[in-house]
Amino acid sequence: MKTGEKTRVAVVGASGYTGEELVRLLLRHPHAELVAATSRQFAGKTVAEIFPRTAHHSKAIALKFTDASPAKIAKEAEIVFLALPHGVAVDFAGPRLEAGARVIDLSADFRIRNAAIYREFYGHEHGAPTLLAGAVYGLPEIYRDQIREARLVACPGCYPTSILLPVIPLLREKLIKPGSVIANSLSGVSGAGRKAELDYLFVECNESIRPYGVPKHRHLAEIEQELSVAAGSTVTIQFTPHLVPVNRGILTTLYLAPTDIGQDAKRIDAAFHQSYANEPFVRLLDEKTLPDTKNVAGSNFIEIAWRHDPRTGRLIVMSAEDNLLKGASGQAIQCFNVICGCEETAGLL
Amino acid sequence: MKTGEKTRVAVVGASGYTGEELVRLLLRHPHAELVAATSRQFAGKTVAEIFPRTAHHSKAIALKFTDASPAKIAKEAEIVFLALPHGVAVDFAGPRLEAGARVIDLSADFRIRNAAIYREFYGHEHGAPTLLAGAVYGLPEIYRDQIREARLVACPGCYPTSILLPVIPLLREKLIKPGSVIANSLSGVSGAGRKAELDYLFVECNESIRPYGVPKHRHLAEIEQELSVAAGSTVTIQFTPHLVPVNRGILTTLYLAPTDIGQDAKRIDAAFHQSYANEPFVRLLDEKTLPDTKNVAGSNFIEIAWRHDPRTGRLIVMSAEDNLLKGASGQAIQCFNVICGCEETAGLL
Amino acid sequence: MKTGEKTRVAVVGASGYTGEELVRLLLRHPHAELVAATSRQFAGKTVAEIFPRTAHHSKAIALKFTDASPAKIAKEAEIVFLALPHGVAVDFAGPRLEAGARVIDLSADFRIRNAAIYREFYGHEHGAPTLLAGAVYGLPEIYRDQIREARLVACPGCYPTSILLPVIPLLREKLIKPGSVIANSLSGVSGAGRKAELDYLFVECNESIRPYGVPKHRHLAEIEQELSVAAGSTVTIQFTPHLVPVNRGILTTLYLAPTDIGQDAKRIDAAFHQSYANEPFVRLLDEKTLPDTKNVAGSNFIEIAWRHDPRTGRLIVMSAEDNLLKGASGQAIQCFNVICGCEETAGLL
Amino acid sequence: MKTGEKTRVAVVGASGYTGEELVRLLLRHPHAELVAATSRQFAGKTVAEIFPRTAHHSKAIALKFTDASPAKIAKEAEIVFLALPHGVAVDFAGPRLEAGARVIDLSADFRIRNAAIYREFYGHEHGAPTLLAGAVYGLPEIYRDQIREARLVACPGCYPTSILLPVIPLLREKLIKPGSVIANSLSGVSGAGRKAELDYLFVECNESIRPYGVPKHRHLAEIEQELSVAAGSTVTIQFTPHLVPVNRGILTTLYLAPTDIGQDAKRIDAAFHQSYANEPFVRLLDEKTLPDTKNVAGSNFIEIAWRHDPRTGRLIVMSAEDNLLKGASGQAIQCFNVICGCEETAGLL
Repeated sequence: MKTGEKTRVAVVGASGYTGEELVRLLLRHPHAELVAATSRQFAGKTVAEIFPRTAHHSKAIALKFTDASPAKIAKEAEIVFLALPHGVAVDFAGPRLEAGARVIDLSADFRIRNAAIYREFYGHEHGAPTLLAGAVYGLPEIYRDQIREARLVACPGCYPTSILLPVIPLLREKLIKPGSVIANSLSGVSGAGRKAELDYLFVECNESIRPYGVPKHRHLAEIEQELSVAAGSTVTIQFTPHLVPVNRGILTTLYLAPTDIGQDAKRIDAAFHQSYANEPFVRLLDEKTLPDTKNVAGSNFIEIAWRHDPRTGRLIVMSAEDNLLKGASGQAIQCFNVICGCEETAGLL
Repeated sequence: MKTGEKTRVAVVGASGYTGEELVRLLLRHPHAELVAATSRQFAGKTVAEIFPRTAHHSKAIALKFTDASPAKIAKEAEIVFLALPHGVAVDFAGPRLEAGARVIDLSADFRIRNAAIYREFYGHEHGAPTLLAGAVYGLPEIYRDQIREARLVACPGCYPTSILLPVIPLLREKLIKPGSVIANSLSGVSGAGRKAELDYLFVECNESIRPYGVPKHRHLAEIEQELSVAAGSTVTIQFTPHLVPVNRGILTTLYLAPTDIGQDAKRIDAAFHQSYANEPFVRLLDEKTLPDTKNVAGSNFIEIAWRHDPRTGRLIVMSAEDNLLKGASGQAIQCFNVICGCEETAGLL
Repeated sequence: MKTGEKTRVAVVGASGYTGEELVRLLLRHPHAELVAATSRQFAGKTVAEIFPRTAHHSKAIALKFTDASPAKIAKEAEIVFLALPHGVAVDFAGPRLEAGARVIDLSADFRIRNAAIYREFYGHEHGAPTLLAGAVYGLPEIYRDQIREARLVACPGCYPTSILLPVIPLLREKLIKPGSVIANSLSGVSGAGRKAELDYLFVECNESIRPYGVPKHRHLAEIEQELSVAAGSTVTIQFTPHLVPVNRGILTTLYLAPTDIGQDAKRIDAAFHQSYANEPFVRLLDEKTLPDTKNVAGSNFIEIAWRHDPRTGRLIVMSAEDNLLKGASGQAIQCFNVICGCEETAGLL
Repeated sequence: MKTGEKTRVAVVGASGYTGEELVRLLLRHPHAELVAATSRQFAGKTVAEIFPRTAHHSKAIALKFTDASPAKIAKEAEIVFLALPHGVAVDFAGPRLEAGARVIDLSADFRIRNAAIYREFYGHEHGAPTLLAGAVYGLPEIYRDQIREARLVACPGCYPTSILLPVIPLLREKLIKPGSVIANSLSGVSGAGRKAELDYLFVECNESIRPYGVPKHRHLAEIEQELSVAAGSTVTIQFTPHLVPVNRGILTTLYLAPTDIGQDAKRIDAAFHQSYANEPFVRLLDEKTLPDTKNVAGSNFIEIAWRHDPRTGRLIVMSAEDNLLKGASGQAIQCFNVICGCEETAGLL
């Protein structure tokens, strides 16, 4: 069933916003052949019916969503994307891995290496702890080499991506105090998923700005795990998410204490430029420009800017990304490109 | 339980957007005493907890939502507002009327005088057809005298109000052809109610403009009923509702054929001015101004403007209102004021 | 300066929303080489600085906006896109045409064949009436063959595209009465352009729905011109534009009187399917689906649906498009593709 | 010209959003008589023409905007509200004060007691430094007694109100470390004023989230001045404003370090309750509820909530207000009520 050079892929749980983005991106991807999409809710309907934005694509008109058990689905796919809720993905990954496929998971199920921490933050035992050791955290800017070889990729959450990419270079270079990290994040409503809940109705979100998940949001588990790796010691941070009325976008403002207040600002600049100057999806902004989610919405880019405040001695770092793309499905495609060995920007520009 | 000059009122089914508006308006009304609010969903919680916007009001802090059967609820209220779904209100009105209360109903249950037409548009038999004859259509500008004496007031739908007020004066004066009426309406999302449905999620409505209910929306039943009364003959109209991403507001654009294309525009002007110059909530705009929902949102006003098109001979009439106020709860309070004999603007400015 | 198979193109007046879209689309177009972009306002700055969304593209980083007189600009371009205000484009087209380039104009300057009608609707004499005869109206679905050979293409306005594509097939087949056409259009705010005017501030547009340009909007000139061609007789229509708070999208609802009320609905269906079944950017929706701007925003597609109303005998036709793409810059690229003889969807999917 | 018990008031510079709110609130205020409104831009037009939302009010229909020099305007007013840009108000206050009127200024001109700090933050010399000593900072919850006697009230900025009310009680009680204050604020677009600038166009703000003024926003001057008073020592804080696409509302999230991490949370609770339990416009939320701007938009209330983070030891405090009301015009009316000795909530519920 291989079509020329294309890799056969499947999307499991394609009915949410990240699933829709995956399907849309894979349909136009030059090196992917979408062979299956599953959705309990939409089984039997075509992709084109459910996602009208794809209706010009002959594959979307032909391909019907299927509904199947974890053991049976998507056998023909070499790489399987899981766009399932937390706690559900875990049951689908094992069977596909055993059958020889690679798995790129967008849920939180394989992001946390320590099953005890998973339990602390997600409130239940992990369903397949033996798989955790083999999972690679799917942040290509940090784990590119490991992703290339990975059988199981755990794509980062949307908030974590917006925090990790700006902070990791600074922690690695010991330029900031690990305990000082405060991340204030603002997210568009698609981050809540396509769920029929009153809280996410148009009228409840429009003309509303509100914090939530204070003070212990689940994403802290993976953020602190990855920051601790970068710092070489256990890092605990402050993180407050807020909901604002846009469809897409995360804007994170970070408040950081430099290890040496008097240090040359050039060391900060250098840390960012050395880490990201050649990264295809990281845009380091100049000293006149601040991030704006509208400049990255619909793309896989993340914008990063930073400012020193001589009055307080703090370093302010800001990032903007599309929560569904660099924060989810775009990053998953980026991982796919790394695995396949094709151009990392393939299908993403 | 009478408190001074105040009328004791109850709101039944207070958990939706119209219920919330009723509660909010009644709490600050100088001549109303809110003695009960019912909600199956919120029973046992205080009004202040559920509607944070009312949390400064001592009554909102003290009053708890109750849940009770139609026969038992709100016995102490002299006037009962029903803010229930269509087909549910019908069971609550009878018991309250028999107990001597007056009922102001915001559902469609008592708007249609002809039970057969109700069945045609609502898909089931009317639950209390004997009550229909006594119900008064709650459009004060048209039925003020009847509302004053009514035991049962059927408040108009949000779209009907935006169409009837502009068209009735023209039909009464035979200035337009009854068969020519085309009403193109745009509504904010609160018109869909506080329902946990995917279609009304923020992400599904924001950056979306869409028609729905084409070509036979339920509101046609009451619109045509009332236009037929005004015309003195059966009127059939074209009506297309659309959903646009605002919280509140209906903008209706009407396309009408004058009976006499060459007629003096002054007769149209006169019809509007004679009908509405003294109406407290109708704003007839001048020739330089067009309606805008932002000028009426949060108020009980309706703006009306009209233009003759010499190229086509048609008359274009436009109206703007707040769908939750002049289109629902504000109008219900206006009816309440008429019934109580107080200033018609009491509690509404 | 020719780069392989690529056509050298320039964008004149690139500082507005349509100019930005043109630049963005041309940068990623497989068969175009953007050699110049002019902007009085941004002269000397790079494309990447002004349009951050393009900042990953090496050409955007290298290319600086230039400012030059009509006679001098963009000499190296084989095809010049004019994204200038009405009345300004006219001075730029002649010099480029004389120099041998082809011109694709996005303004209204060359859309009206009759200079007297131009004067009636635009309020001043046409600046280059001798060019009008040679201009081709850039609606590929209607004028594909003429566009292929055209030296000067006049791209349709955003509203006209949303009205002409649905109505032309019906008029050509004599299925509707020409005098019956009523077009009610809703547009996102980008249609007003990037102009620093109070009316288009966020606070003035958000939570606002409003009609404007009643009853004689300038776009009527080109709409009626093209409908008259289709009908074979002079057509006068009703058209009312409205502003709604979305960035992008036009939703048009058309009210039409069939020539023969009793006629088989299949003739209407056939007219649409014969006209558009093979068109790459026209989506004819099925009987269960209505247009929604969110399904076409960001794309060059137009959705069309239609319903017969047995109660009134009218035909309701609805369309949705992205005003900046199928309504402007996307359509201009589609014309470019037709002229170049490449795949019509090149750079647009 | 005194009308019964009413105080004669004027609004100078009524064409912006805060001016419009002042006019709207004063028209319905039971103890105010609006005798003049000035606007260079709108001179000669009636209030009802320019602010359609007031068009039902007979005074709005009768009153015309005037344009006059600082020395001449609004002589008949006992209290003059200045809703002018920074640097302009300063010229209007002196003449009115000398003529015996009281002045309630909404600009920044009299908020900073130290003229040198004014120059540092506003970039020019203060125009009337001798008036600074007599000005009272118009935050009734903090300066009620002084406002009562003040001739010149300097109403706080919108961001400062959202930061000062939550932080002052904690600093006064020495419960937090003064140097630890980090304020992350999100504002609706009306905060930018009614200015015809590209940055505030609908299309530039909608679907956009962005920081600005990093790291030294002008409001820091007054925030730090007032926090220093509360702390009894010089306080320097971190403050980052962001623009989000709502019309109204400020949401501030504060990150604070308790002086004693192990301290009883009850001391924090007590500080808030002792300060604000009897304040008519401060809503202290319970432990299940977080602030949401939609609950205060259109009102003069501020919501405050706080959470201890046992993981980091920090205290998170959040506030929500309407930037045009509690953040500007509503607060000015509250000050007016204090001065007049009427109910502090008059005209504000």
